[in-house]
Amino acid sequence: MPLDVADLVDRARNGQPRAVARLISLVEDAHPALREVAAALTPHTGHARVIGLTGPPGVGKSTSTSVLVSALRAEGKRVGVLAIDPSSPFSGGALLGDRIRMTEHASDSGVFIRSMATRGHLGGLSWATPQAVRVLDAAGFDVVLIETVGVGQSEVDVVRLADTTVVLLAPGLGDGVQAAKAGVLEIADVFVVNKADREGVDTVVRDLKQLIAFARREIRGESWRQPVVRTVAARGEGVPELVKALSGHHDWLVAHGELARRRADRAASEVAAIALRELRARLTDPHRGGHLPSVAKKVADQALDPYAAADELLAALRDEA
Amino acid sequence: MPLDVADLVDRARNGQPRAVARLISLVEDAHPALREVAAALTPHTGHARVIGLTGPPGVGKSTSTSVLVSALRAEGKRVGVLAIDPSSPFSGGALLGDRIRMTEHASDSGVFIRSMATRGHLGGLSWATPQAVRVLDAAGFDVVLIETVGVGQSEVDVVRLADTTVVLLAPGLGDGVQAAKAGVLEIADVFVVNKADREGVDTVVRDLKQLIAFARREIRGESWRQPVVRTVAARGEGVPELVKALSGHHDWLVAHGELARRRADRAASEVAAIALRELRARLTDPHRGGHLPSVAKKVADQALDPYAAADELLAALRDEA
Repeated sequence: MPLDVADLVDRARNGQPRAVARLISLVEDAHPALREVAAALTPHTGHARVIGLTGPPGVGKSTSTSVLVSALRAEGKRVGVLAIDPSSPFSGGALLGDRIRMTEHASDSGVFIRSMATRGHLGGLSWATPQAVRVLDAAGFDVVLIETVGVGQSEVDVVRLADTTVVLLAPGLGDGVQAAKAGVLEIADVFVVNKADREGVDTVVRDLKQLIAFARREIRGESWRQPVVRTVAARGEGVPELVKALSGHHDWLVAHGELARRRADRAASEVAAIALRELRARLTDPHRGGHLPSVAKKVADQALDPYAAADELLAALRDEA
Repeated sequence: MPLDVADLVDRARNGQPRAVARLISLVEDAHPALREVAAALTPHTGHARVIGLTGPPGVGKSTSTSVLVSALRAEGKRVGVLAIDPSSPFSGGALLGDRIRMTEHASDSGVFIRSMATRGHLGGLSWATPQAVRVLDAAGFDVVLIETVGVGQSEVDVVRLADTTVVLLAPGLGDGVQAAKAGVLEIADVFVVNKADREGVDTVVRDLKQLIAFARREIRGESWRQPVVRTVAARGEGVPELVKALSGHHDWLVAHGELARRRADRAASEVAAIALRELRARLTDPHRGGHLPSVAKKVADQALDPYAAADELLAALRDEA
């Protein structure tokens, strides 16, 4: 049976979770119908607030996501969750355990949860995730949460595609703030210090605030002050404050024209990933005239250096265009 | 002072570690002289055996690398080590501790150790690592060890560029073999079960051998039987057996024409990464006529879907070629 894209998109927009799931599967499979799907979805996008959550292992990301979903549901919002799954072939069972906590939302039709398993995918997470966000946005979800489960740079890069990025820290996770500082300050719009009932929380919060104050002096023209919210996600403590901080950042984005800029950045990332995947296919697929295998053999035989080989490849691409 | 590439390459080939380090820095910085460097290096490559080591955190990769370096040195071989560093912004101090163990080789001029810190690099590890291997190969190292410290898929992909890939496991690391099986069987040429003095080692080895036997039935025409070597790297136990297994695999690669195929694959990966980085720059850099920002804005404004935008981008690339 041929795929009826218009019908599938209609059903997704009418809130049928199976249609939404099918559309995201098409993204994960890089299905040929994706062009048609994207064209059908695009007019219905631009409504959803996209929130990314990231942080080191053990910080309570899944629990935080789950209680955040509950809080947003209490406000009547429909919430889609994309859990960016571990990208390592060595990941273990604990992460699956985390997933199970989310089952409390399984019976709620206003919540859609999907793990993105894009390991080995050409173009990977940067290719699939923004297109999956587009599906959820068009399907009428008010908020899309992108949560990393893995800890690689690529997962973090994907979370950064959000309108608002939440970085979670917690007391007692190794070097804490110091270890994390290289990466997190430029990523975070909102900091959460979870497990705030644990010893050492005051130190983490103080260090973090010092770091924020110090970095502010470095960034000119930046008027958003990253808030630090204390939570005990497992007991729901601090969650109203987190929701308020998220709204505050959204309002700031709108007021400063930054929302449009971030969404243009996300669109740029999406378009570039699609274009580069196509170019990679043209370069490497011998069935499409890709010359990579033949020039690579010359490089391996030391008859050509890799830059000269890349030049040959690009020239061939141009000649065939 | 302009960079004297010929002199730098000469000094690297004469065993000067500072020249080798400088060449790898040029790779990490994507220095414009890299074309010239690659052309000067290529005639001197093809000698080094490239061995990748990967495995889950806590398995003892750094210790294993260090004792393997000692064993290869005892055979009179010069050894270069590329430690692929954590790609997560949330990585902590324990990994730095691991690095320090390698300092026992610091005074040995037959050993060169370099951490590859390519976070945020356009094209990332797949761009820099094969070029760094090329540097070490041309500089006359007999063996190049690529060790992952991070656990992301991209680090693992890089290790797979080796002639021989070693996957380390150990008893007591969560779900062990079962958790790892999805990824490791297709990666590994040689398995090491490290910490073999720990309880549970027999179970890990048995499970692993069952998995290998089972997978063998699935792969036709594959006559290499992945060995399972027990080691206690911290005490040097099992290291002679590991060295023997590595030599065995190398001999098998040569005998079956597989070494040439793997090296052509590595060259293909290197060339593709160079070409795609160039294409990415042409697409995205407005100073080079990249139209990405303007088409991305149309996508964000729902005036264009992302696939149509990618088509526009690719058409513009063709017109300007």
